[in-house]
Amino acid sequence: MQVRGLPFRGFSVSSLFLQYLLIRALHETSRLPIQQEFAQTLQSGLKLGHSQAICVGMGKILVLYHSKDGATAQMAELVAEGARSIDGMEVSCKSIAEATRLDVVACDGLALGSPTHMGGIAWEMKKFWDVEMANDWGHIDGKIGCAFSSQGGWGGGAELTCQALLNMMMNYGMLTFGVTDYVAHQFTLHYGATVAGQPRTEREQDAPRRLGQRLAEWVAVYVDGRRAEHPLTSGRKRFPWSD
Amino acid sequence: MQVRGLPFRGFSVSSLFLQYLLIRALHETSRLPIQQEFAQTLQSGLKLGHSQAICVGMGKILVLYHSKDGATAQMAELVAEGARSIDGMEVSCKSIAEATRLDVVACDGLALGSPTHMGGIAWEMKKFWDVEMANDWGHIDGKIGCAFSSQGGWGGGAELTCQALLNMMMNYGMLTFGVTDYVAHQFTLHYGATVAGQPRTEREQDAPRRLGQRLAEWVAVYVDGRRAEHPLTSGRKRFPWSD
Amino acid sequence: MQVRGLPFRGFSVSSLFLQYLLIRALHETSRLPIQQEFAQTLQSGLKLGHSQAICVGMGKILVLYHSKDGATAQMAELVAEGARSIDGMEVSCKSIAEATRLDVVACDGLALGSPTHMGGIAWEMKKFWDVEMANDWGHIDGKIGCAFSSQGGWGGGAELTCQALLNMMMNYGMLTFGVTDYVAHQFTLHYGATVAGQPRTEREQDAPRRLGQRLAEWVAVYVDGRRAEHPLTSGRKRFPWSD
Amino acid sequence: MQVRGLPFRGFSVSSLFLQYLLIRALHETSRLPIQQEFAQTLQSGLKLGHSQAICVGMGKILVLYHSKDGATAQMAELVAEGARSIDGMEVSCKSIAEATRLDVVACDGLALGSPTHMGGIAWEMKKFWDVEMANDWGHIDGKIGCAFSSQGGWGGGAELTCQALLNMMMNYGMLTFGVTDYVAHQFTLHYGATVAGQPRTEREQDAPRRLGQRLAEWVAVYVDGRRAEHPLTSGRKRFPWSD
Repeated sequence: MQVRGLPFRGFSVSSLFLQYLLIRALHETSRLPIQQEFAQTLQSGLKLGHSQAICVGMGKILVLYHSKDGATAQMAELVAEGARSIDGMEVSCKSIAEATRLDVVACDGLALGSPTHMGGIAWEMKKFWDVEMANDWGHIDGKIGCAFSSQGGWGGGAELTCQALLNMMMNYGMLTFGVTDYVAHQFTLHYGATVAGQPRTEREQDAPRRLGQRLAEWVAVYVDGRRAEHPLTSGRKRFPWSD
Repeated sequence: MQVRGLPFRGFSVSSLFLQYLLIRALHETSRLPIQQEFAQTLQSGLKLGHSQAICVGMGKILVLYHSKDGATAQMAELVAEGARSIDGMEVSCKSIAEATRLDVVACDGLALGSPTHMGGIAWEMKKFWDVEMANDWGHIDGKIGCAFSSQGGWGGGAELTCQALLNMMMNYGMLTFGVTDYVAHQFTLHYGATVAGQPRTEREQDAPRRLGQRLAEWVAVYVDGRRAEHPLTSGRKRFPWSD
Repeated sequence: MQVRGLPFRGFSVSSLFLQYLLIRALHETSRLPIQQEFAQTLQSGLKLGHSQAICVGMGKILVLYHSKDGATAQMAELVAEGARSIDGMEVSCKSIAEATRLDVVACDGLALGSPTHMGGIAWEMKKFWDVEMANDWGHIDGKIGCAFSSQGGWGGGAELTCQALLNMMMNYGMLTFGVTDYVAHQFTLHYGATVAGQPRTEREQDAPRRLGQRLAEWVAVYVDGRRAEHPLTSGRKRFPWSD
Repeated sequence: MQVRGLPFRGFSVSSLFLQYLLIRALHETSRLPIQQEFAQTLQSGLKLGHSQAICVGMGKILVLYHSKDGATAQMAELVAEGARSIDGMEVSCKSIAEATRLDVVACDGLALGSPTHMGGIAWEMKKFWDVEMANDWGHIDGKIGCAFSSQGGWGGGAELTCQALLNMMMNYGMLTFGVTDYVAHQFTLHYGATVAGQPRTEREQDAPRRLGQRLAEWVAVYVDGRRAEHPLTSGRKRFPWSD
């Protein structure tokens, strides 16, 4: 549930009657334009809750990318796959040609991917944030963000592109992260997932998957209040050399 | 509860009566402009809770710095002052000479400050993270972090030093952020608070204050589950040109 | 002679008599404080040469910029003014709307300016290098490059934008630099010239001027072989606190 | 030949008699302390010249590194090997434990290597520049610099460490560069040479070699005036797919 960037989740409602009252209150709310989505989302959350006794909102993950020759698009699908591996996430994966500002405004967590072009973000992706998102600047603070990029070759700037994407998300007030985990011997994603060309090998596919998983974990923990998903205690494997 | 750096909190609502009050409050909200009033009402709900039955954890903020000639130390005090402006935060401010790894392990939010020396982090601060913290790497993921730096002159690299500090915190698995707010005309802290020399002018003092405030807000919202502290809806002033 | 961006110049000394004069000049030098006098004497030797038999090439400087509201355009003019302060430079100043790839291919030294938009290079400038220049990638290595940017406010990302511009120029094989000089108390341009808004104050105007001057000096020294223009020995003022 | 950072080379002396006069002039010079090295270097250059008719100075390359487990030390040797592949270079390779500030002051070109520790420069290397070199700041501008780093795994921050090293060199007024060349399919060094762990594979060894070669080429072209060494026209292989 998100009202212009305000995350509000994680309180347990232990009584069906109280849930009913809450839904009634929100039903009133739904007559006002700006509160409509708010009400609908919460209501759907509460409906889930009806059969589960505890109502937890569903974190929204957006994987947003631009791709020139398909490599970054492939990474995006893997990021989305990783995000879906965490229960209770609503994950969508869109190119900047498909997405609008509303997709970004609505999400809780954002994985942003661009090919590394000439040492940085592809101009098409930069234009999306310079133009399409411009009026939302200052109104969408607090989302959780991460980055991924495909480069022409190792040492070709994908880390710098991830850094530039993270800087841009920080500019929009987001909380950005990398991943400490290693997905294989000598293969990690400390500042975002990077590959050379297309993600063909297992480790090149696991890196974007892990990025999406971690994004979903942080959204689960911090936005949805599902502390059990914290990567330090979830029990999910983080390093190839650990048991 | 804290398990090797794992923030684990949340507020339980143990009384049906309080839930009823909360729902009533939300009902009222629905007739008012959503952003401000929603937050204020919910906040008052939480305040009610404080004295009755709602348990809210206390976020721990650490301001950790190195200073050579005192400028970064002054910034650190201002960051701590800003963090204390948010209720319910436990704030400590220590130099790397005073702090140990346990201070870092224990905190939920970290503001890290170094003078800009030769275009980057002072070696003393880097040593703290290369040596003192090394064994904690991989075990303290998920803290919320931000940066500040004093440089010799504008254009002297403080943004790059903040970026290097943020990279280092990301390496440790933290979620890092900057601040969209402007504290004065043509003065902001998008990637951390930066000053030239000592923070003497009002705007140079407000920037580190705002950084600390924002850090406390994110810890309140995401670690302590106090959604009313979200900067988009708290009603606290963010831009000099807003009402 | 210029072969697809290859600077190839040097001065030939065709007369034994001139060599003799040069050696005499150096002999004189040996009795004087080495740095300043050496440079001055050699410079006078070259001036002699100009009217007689020594051929010195003319370095080509391009100031290339994009500007949205005019601030970066004003900086560009100041950079060009600074470059023209060094004798024997051919300086042009063009927006990306006016310039073509041929302007870049032809230059020896490039000052590249973009407003700081959302924490990085404006998409229009990035597009110029992603599209217009793409076929020249790998064929224009070795140019000397520097950066400048206008940001919305101090702490707003202009250093990061300069860094991104420098990264992009490095991607194209250029040698990039910043300036150690301070143009005023607490005002420098270590990674390129940065201002907040328009360059109104003297120090905000001197920073881009100094950038252009330094670019012209490096082109003079390294491309044209005019060693007397080296900033360490030219005798030109570098710091406000020096005599 | 270098007099406190002033490069002075590249003029041809076509007469043995004039060389003699020049050496006599410099012999006088050699009685003054600061000019001693200057004279010696030029004299040795001239002696070479005696048998070659044209006197060209010898560019000095310093490969300076810190290594923890030996990987960066191995890279350093490969960088030095690459630099020696260009004729007429005086190449030395030293760890920061062996080098002093004088080694840096004396060099024309610098390749700087550090392991990637916690997302950035190892504190030991940073200390060298914060402390050992501090008094030389502002007096050694104009050297040509590049970077290399070994990281724990791909995606582990070596590009960011190279960037931080380049920023630090720019802070000291150097002209910094990366390499456009690919040493193998999907393997390049656009912002410096990077490897994961030790450089074991051929491409991981060729990247630091190419870095050293390019450094020597730029020093040859720009400091020594040997335009024939320009990588765009030297005829040396730059891409695996070119003839």
